[in-house]
Formats: sequence, C-alpha cells, structure tokens
Amino acid sequence: MQQNNKDFPLVTSVGVVAEPPSLQDNTADLDRLHAAVSRSLPEKLATRPLTIPFQVMAGLGRRFRRAGFSGHALINVAPHQLTIVDFLKTNPKKIPAMALDLGTTHLEATLIDLVSGNNLAHTHGPNAQMQYGADILSRIHYAAGKASGQNGLLKLQHAAVDSINLLIEALGEEAGIEPEYIRAISVSGNTTMVHLLLGLSPYHICREPYTPMTGAPDPFFAAEIGLRINKQALVWVLPNIGSYFGGDLISGILASGLDEMEKTSMLIDVGTNAEVVLGNKDWLIACAGAAGPALEGGVARMGMRAGPGAIEHVRLDRENWQLTVSTIDDQPAVGICGSGLIELVAELYLARVVDLRGKLCRDTVSGTKKRRDFICKHLLETEEGLVFVVTSAETSGHGRPVVLAQVDLDAMMRSKAAMYAILATLVSQVGVEFSDLDRIYVAGAFGKHIDPGSAITLGMLPDLPIATYVSVGNSSLHGAELVLLSEKARIRSREIRRKITYIELNVNQEFMLRFSGSRFIPHTDPHLFPSVPIFSREDPGRNG
Amino acid sequence: MQQNNKDFPLVTSVGVVAEPPSLQDNTADLDRLHAAVSRSLPEKLATRPLTIPFQVMAGLGRRFRRAGFSGHALINVAPHQLTIVDFLKTNPKKIPAMALDLGTTHLEATLIDLVSGNNLAHTHGPNAQMQYGADILSRIHYAAGKASGQNGLLKLQHAAVDSINLLIEALGEEAGIEPEYIRAISVSGNTTMVHLLLGLSPYHICREPYTPMTGAPDPFFAAEIGLRINKQALVWVLPNIGSYFGGDLISGILASGLDEMEKTSMLIDVGTNAEVVLGNKDWLIACAGAAGPALEGGVARMGMRAGPGAIEHVRLDRENWQLTVSTIDDQPAVGICGSGLIELVAELYLARVVDLRGKLCRDTVSGTKKRRDFICKHLLETEEGLVFVVTSAETSGHGRPVVLAQVDLDAMMRSKAAMYAILATLVSQVGVEFSDLDRIYVAGAFGKHIDPGSAITLGMLPDLPIATYVSVGNSSLHGAELVLLSEKARIRSREIRRKITYIELNVNQEFMLRFSGSRFIPHTDPHLFPSVPIFSREDPGRNG
Repeated sequence: MQQNNKDFPLVTSVGVVAEPPSLQDNTADLDRLHAAVSRSLPEKLATRPLTIPFQVMAGLGRRFRRAGFSGHALINVAPHQLTIVDFLKTNPKKIPAMALDLGTTHLEATLIDLVSGNNLAHTHGPNAQMQYGADILSRIHYAAGKASGQNGLLKLQHAAVDSINLLIEALGEEAGIEPEYIRAISVSGNTTMVHLLLGLSPYHICREPYTPMTGAPDPFFAAEIGLRINKQALVWVLPNIGSYFGGDLISGILASGLDEMEKTSMLIDVGTNAEVVLGNKDWLIACAGAAGPALEGGVARMGMRAGPGAIEHVRLDRENWQLTVSTIDDQPAVGICGSGLIELVAELYLARVVDLRGKLCRDTVSGTKKRRDFICKHLLETEEGLVFVVTSAETSGHGRPVVLAQVDLDAMMRSKAAMYAILATLVSQVGVEFSDLDRIYVAGAFGKHIDPGSAITLGMLPDLPIATYVSVGNSSLHGAELVLLSEKARIRSREIRRKITYIELNVNQEFMLRFSGSRFIPHTDPHLFPSVPIFSREDPGRNG
Repeated sequence: MQQNNKDFPLVTSVGVVAEPPSLQDNTADLDRLHAAVSRSLPEKLATRPLTIPFQVMAGLGRRFRRAGFSGHALINVAPHQLTIVDFLKTNPKKIPAMALDLGTTHLEATLIDLVSGNNLAHTHGPNAQMQYGADILSRIHYAAGKASGQNGLLKLQHAAVDSINLLIEALGEEAGIEPEYIRAISVSGNTTMVHLLLGLSPYHICREPYTPMTGAPDPFFAAEIGLRINKQALVWVLPNIGSYFGGDLISGILASGLDEMEKTSMLIDVGTNAEVVLGNKDWLIACAGAAGPALEGGVARMGMRAGPGAIEHVRLDRENWQLTVSTIDDQPAVGICGSGLIELVAELYLARVVDLRGKLCRDTVSGTKKRRDFICKHLLETEEGLVFVVTSAETSGHGRPVVLAQVDLDAMMRSKAAMYAILATLVSQVGVEFSDLDRIYVAGAFGKHIDPGSAITLGMLPDLPIATYVSVGNSSLHGAELVLLSEKARIRSREIRRKITYIELNVNQEFMLRFSGSRFIPHTDPHLFPSVPIFSREDPGRNG
C-alpha cells in the first residue's frame, strides 16, 4: 500500500542493510543505523528530519547490533519528523495499532494491522469516568475539583486510561498479540474527553467563550499517559475545531469523505450533541446543538442506549391495529432506544394517537372498533397523565410495562425540533436547499438503527428520497482507523480544521426562530414535508 | 546578540501578543499560543516546525492564560524543530544555562546567561564514578557488570548524574538562581563519559573496531536522565567522532576556531589521551594516542593533577646550582604535576643530570664543585635505583621527600615520545611541515601550566618560536559554552564531524617508527631541534 499511492501509515517498517563496523568504518552504531535508514526511506519521507528519541537509544543500539546491522527499522511517521523507535531482525508481518472512539459513556476500539490494513480485533466497553459524572458538564465540574478534592482531573484521566487499558487487553487477547507490540493508537473523541485523557483542564470548554486548551495536540508517546501498549507507540489525537466540535466529528468527515466530494452532502452525528457538517471538497460548514439526549435514549424514562432488549423498531398495522415491536438481540423488551422512540412516535402520529403538537390524545370514539380497542388497551390514564404502553409488564424483560409518557414525548419533540432547526439553519447559512444535497450521512448508533422514513414523518429530517440517507456506522472509530493507516487522512484531518466554518448556534437568532417552527409534526409549514399526511386537529382518527 | 548576527542560543525568549478568546475567536489556548509565537519568530527560525511537547501542555496553557495571553514564550531551539517549553508574563532578564566539561576524573561547569552571554557562576568537582574505576577502561569493564553485579552501567550513570547535580546546586547558590530556572545544559566529554551519562553501553568503545553506540545524540530533556534543573531544559551533547575522539575535542576545535581559520593550525589536548587536530577552514585531520597519563600526573609515583601543593614550575640555576620550585597555591610540595615534571626533566637534561636516553646519571666528578655538591645532595642511590630528590622530607607537605625515580622518568619519556610521534605523524599525513603552522593551541591544565620551551627541550613539542604556542584553557568547557550561546557553533560542531579525517594510530606503521625515533632527548635526529643543545654521551657535564 505504501509504495503504490505513496501514502504512509502512522508507523512503517523500513528495510535496512548496513555493513558491520570495521577499522575502515567504525561509525557509531546509531549513526550507522541513522544513515542506513536515511538511505532506505521512501522518497516522499526522505526530506523529513529523522531522529532517535533518547528513551530508545540504548535498546535500539543493542537490537541493531544483535540483528547483525541489517533488518527492519520501525519508524513513527509524524508530520514534520520521523522517529526510529525499534529495530527488528525480520520484517514484521503485522504492525498492530489501535483505533479508539473515546465516547463520553462508551468506548469502542479496533486493532488494525498497519501492514495489510486488516482489522485484527474489535471491542468496546464503558467509560469508567461515568462514576464521576454521567455527562460532559458534570465531568468538567468534577475535574475542577469541587466534589473531587482538587485532583478530579487526575482521577478522570486515570479512569479514561484504565478504561482504554482494559480494551487493550481485550484486543490483545482476541488477536493473540502482546500489547507491547501495539505500535500506535489514534484517539477520536469529543473535545472534553480528549482533554480529560490528556490531563488538560476542560474548565473553559463550558464557559463563554467556550475555549478548549488544545485544538491539535502534537503526537506523543503512549507511556506518557500510562497506556499499556508499546512505550514508544505514537498517540495520534484527532484534532478538534472547538469546545463543541470534537475530533470524533473530524473523524466522521474523514470516514464519510465529505471533504473530498464534488457534490454537496451532509453529515449528521447524534451523540450527546447533534453535530452536523455540510459541504464538499471546496467548503465545509458545521454546527452543533443539544438535540441528542432524547434521540440517544438519554431522556425518556424508558429510554436506553441501543443494547439488548432495547426496542429498536416499531410497526403499527393500522388495518388490524396490531403493534409489532422488535428488540435488539430479540431479548424481552426493557426500554426504548432512540430509533425505537422515533418509529413509535411516527407510527402513533400516523395513527393519530399523537397529534401535530406531539401530544398523546385518547380518542376512544373515532374510527373502527379495532382502533378503539387498541387505544383502550395501550393508552392509559395514570397519576402522571396519559401513558402509551408499548410492552406490557407480562411480556417485558423486567416485569414492568415499557411505556411512553407525555414527558418523554415532550423531550423527544424538543430534540426533533432542535435537529430540524439545526439542519435548516445550516443549509440556509450557505444558501443551498435540502434538495441540493447529494447524500445525507448519518453516523453512529442513531444512523445505524434509525428509519429515515419515520424521522421524516416526525419532521426531524428533511423530506428527501429515502436513498439520500446513508448510514455510516461509528464514523468516529472509522476516522480513527483511517488516520492510523493513511498520512493523507492525517493531513486531511488538519486541513478540515482550517477549511471548516463553525457556527455557534447558542447565539444564533435564526436557529431560535426555526426551532419554534419545528415543534410541530411534521412542521408548522407543511409544504416542507409534502410526503407526510397532515391531519387537522378537528378531525381526529377519521382515517383509521 | 540574536538580532544582529542572526544567531540563536539554545533557548530563546519570544515576545508574544495574542488577543484574549472571544465568541468571534475562541481558538484553543495552545493553538492561540502556537499561532502567536509563529507570528513573532525571527525570520531565520520561522521555517522550522514549532511543537508543544506533551509534558508541558497543561502548565503552558495555564501560564499563557494567567499572563493574559501576552508575555514571553521560551523556545528550545533544536536543529530541525522549535519547542515551546514555558511562558512568562515578563521578559526574562536572564536565561541561565549550564555548560559542563564532563571529565573522567573531574567536572568543571559554568552557568551562562543566554540573554547577555555573561558568565554567572563557575564551579568544579570530582566525577563520583571514580569509586567504580579510576580510568576509562576500568569503567567500561565495570559497566559491563563483571564487578558490579550487572547494573554497573546504571550505577555509573547515577554517579555521573549525582556529580552533575552537586555542581548544579553549587552554581545555583553562587548565582542566586533556583536550579529549576536553568533552562539548558550542554555536555562536553569524552565518548565513554557521554555514553555513561546517557546510560548507553560503552562495551564496544574499547574493543576492535572501537565503535561507540552514538555519535551525535539528538537533544533530549534534562528530566529524562534525572538532572535537577528545569525538566524541559534541553540537554545538548557535543557529538563525538569515534571512540577515542570525543565531544570534548570537538569543543576544543570550536573554542580555538581551528575550523574557521585561513591558515593551518594545530590543537593539542592532553587529557587521559593526547588528542591532536590539524587543519583550517578547508580541512581537518585528527588523531589521538596514549600520551597523556605521565603528562597529566597519572603515572609518576609522585605525579598528581594540577592542584594545591603540586610542583608546577622548576628552575635550575646552572651557575649557582640552585633548584627553585614553585607549587600551586604556594603550598608545601606534595607531588609533581605534568608541567612540573616536564620542566624538571628539561632542566635536568640541560644540567646533564638526565642524559639523551632519559636516564638519570650520577656523574659526581665532572663540572664545578657546586655542581658536584648539587648532585650529591639531590641524586641518591636507593634500593630501587637512582632517585632525584626535588623537595626534601623536611620541607615537603607530607613529611616524605618528593622524588623523581627512573621509573617515572621512563614513563615520561614514553609519553613525550608518543606526543612528538603523534604530532609528526599527523603533520606528515597531510604533507605540511611544522614550520607551516600558524599557531599551536594547547588546551587544558596541560596547556595552562606547561612551559613550551621545556617541552621543546625534551623534544616533546616541535622546535617552533615560543609565540606559536597559545594556551586555550579548558577548551572543552569553552566549547560547551559556545554551543549554548550560538546555533552557528552547534552547526559547526556537526560540520566538524563530517569534515574531519580521523587517523587511527593504533594501526599506523609510521607512528610506530616515529615513536622509536622520539625516545631520545630531544630526538635521534637533532636537526629537528636546532634550538636544543645536544650533548654526546662521552662528554658528560662539561658545560656545567
């Protein structure tokens, strides 16, 4: 791969042949190595300064000599500098490196072979920082030391490192590789998670004017933060664009290829925030907003992350008034994840059980008997108002009914309104129409599970042909994999930073206006959603 | 100094003015700092990559913010990279840095202000490695672990670091500066001493083909080897040219300016070895040989390093046959240092008490009565043969006579023969004559104390006008000071390595021939020393 398209992984091996020392040439061992590596470097790398870091000198010299002065040097490929970090007698068949999506609640990682590009192992696990605060804001406060006794930042850093070290063990075990042979790690995470991992104060991230401490940290060695892989493994952190626009989204842009496209497309990543990028090879514009929690399952009382027993799909047969739900791993239902919530509310809207204001309405007189029976069975008046029972206590996984309460619906309505307002504001800023978009890439679990049709019905996503929507999976992780394998991707990640315009929605008037208009299903302006049926408030249930 | 001749010390401060973060520009703090420093760099440095090392990120960001985003960045100036290591609110009046001559037995150091170039403090002390071996060879063996229980190298490294840390304390105290404000250290030492300080195995240095592990180590941070100055102080190690040609001699070339001269000159540095460089701005040739010990006071039983009570000057009034000695610090004599030994033997040769073979001869019948009395008083027959009493037990500092025995004289004769053979071989290699030399720089204590006239009398130094000889003091230390202050000197130090031709005398036939011819006073070929009187063996003492 290196030779053909002249691209380079973060660590590369260079075949080295040197004459053994003699009285005619008794050049120092490491100078001999340096010269031999310099001679053997691919042309594209040959102009870069080549250094030998202090920590490796003794071991490197020893191994070079033991190998008989010929073998393979391992080189860390940084933007302005090459570093010789190890010497092997034989050409390494694999150079394992770790790609990490460092999420606020959840970590996901792959082990990638930098020689073949193959995926060697995959794992995931919780972020142990959860014990110190469930969300970004509480962690920033914890880091500042009010609850933590002044060393909160250190505790959070250690929790992140410990969590990653657990993943390292799991990856090593799955791939049958000792962690010390893992030669690099790329980290893709939101700006706060990256700060906490690096032991940098996130204090100003959440305070006006929302300034991170670092945007694009220089690569450093894994041992410097206690990661238990090879000590000189390079840590390559995806750069951020600001407090609310992290390396995880830069990864998403890399993975979707938005920054290289002729036609204008859009990338939507719904995590703790909804982060959206619009653009093509010439320009990129981005914004982020608090649209996420309800959609990720964080707000609804029955909400949960996409996991076993989470209701992810909901269908309502409006002929026979049969509700069909499917859960992840086909486990008995224990909650509703974001995609399930969206489908449920869309189906209930089409069934006119939820009205255009997003309110449950217990109309037990209209429509067919089947419809009336359905409503009597599922829509119950409780102490806290109307709730819609999705799964009864008898069939659920925890002996309690799985329900949708009005309060959950309200939260979802705010989220969906925010999402549409974000997208519409962004598009309007650059004077394009939704219909101009070639593709809309939807990242993450949200993108993987969501039914775009249901989201369109709710007025959450623009009313475009379903084929416009493309799920790109965990694009944060995919981007991290790309930067491990490709210097072009690493350069792109820095160019994206320079190229992108970031709109702060917190201070954007247009966003607030659009948000208000989006708090109806599908929208106050039905012309925006021609494919969605509109029901007047005075005509409930007539179609059922 | 920086602005005028566009030269740069190893650490420089750059005035930085940045706007505080705002909603219009909430660039990350360290990105803001990076951009502001980039804008403010002197033109000559502006093309170099500018990095922020991981270890300083948190502190640097904090200090930049505390200073209100304006102040002075401290920059480590490495050949291919600039590193921001600290941020100060006000322009530092001084940037203290340490220059170190890391000798086998003795360390000497100065504290230099990189802003003014002023010398702030000066100190010296023993090399604590002495406890593990008096000379280079015994340390190399100790490092290999036979006597040391396998961690000999580590013990030697710690001993060197401890010795340096003592000097650091002394320098700090003298200058009234906390060691953490010492921002750089340059190290000039022989190849073995540098290897031991860096924790690199010196095993192959003394084994054919005499290969060091490193020639020109990349700069690293002081904390990496436990030096108790600023953690990010750059350690700049003078490069070596081979096992027997260390950074101390590169320093000597820098300090003498040999590599920049129009006319051909020579540099002689007598330490544990005699190291000699010949050349000018176009070429340099060098060699080293074991001529040193006797001349440094290491072989003669009464020999000692130049220190209090060491006899450094000897004059013999051949009219009145009065011997006058002077000692360092005017203390009662306790031994003879190298320069004293040379003067003594030269005077004894001129007095025909030492013959042209370098043998003491007790001729008690020739010359005046004063001469005969002198010989009876000073030249005694003992169990171990003839000894010359320089200072009697009554007037010495330790109650024993200070004597010159034949065995000491023999050692000195070998040394002086080796020295002349080295010089003559080197000169002959490039086809110049001694008389072509513009200057002969003599470094070290040897150069400071030696009387060139006496050395010429013995046939140790070529018979040139006395004004040809210039003492350059501790040029190892001076070179270390230069590289702290000047990037040009640092570049020169690396260019010297490339430019120099090194002759291995151990395998040189010509050297062996010349050595034999030099084992007489002044030489088997008296035409080489027209200024020195020659006495035939059959005509002893007639001039006295």
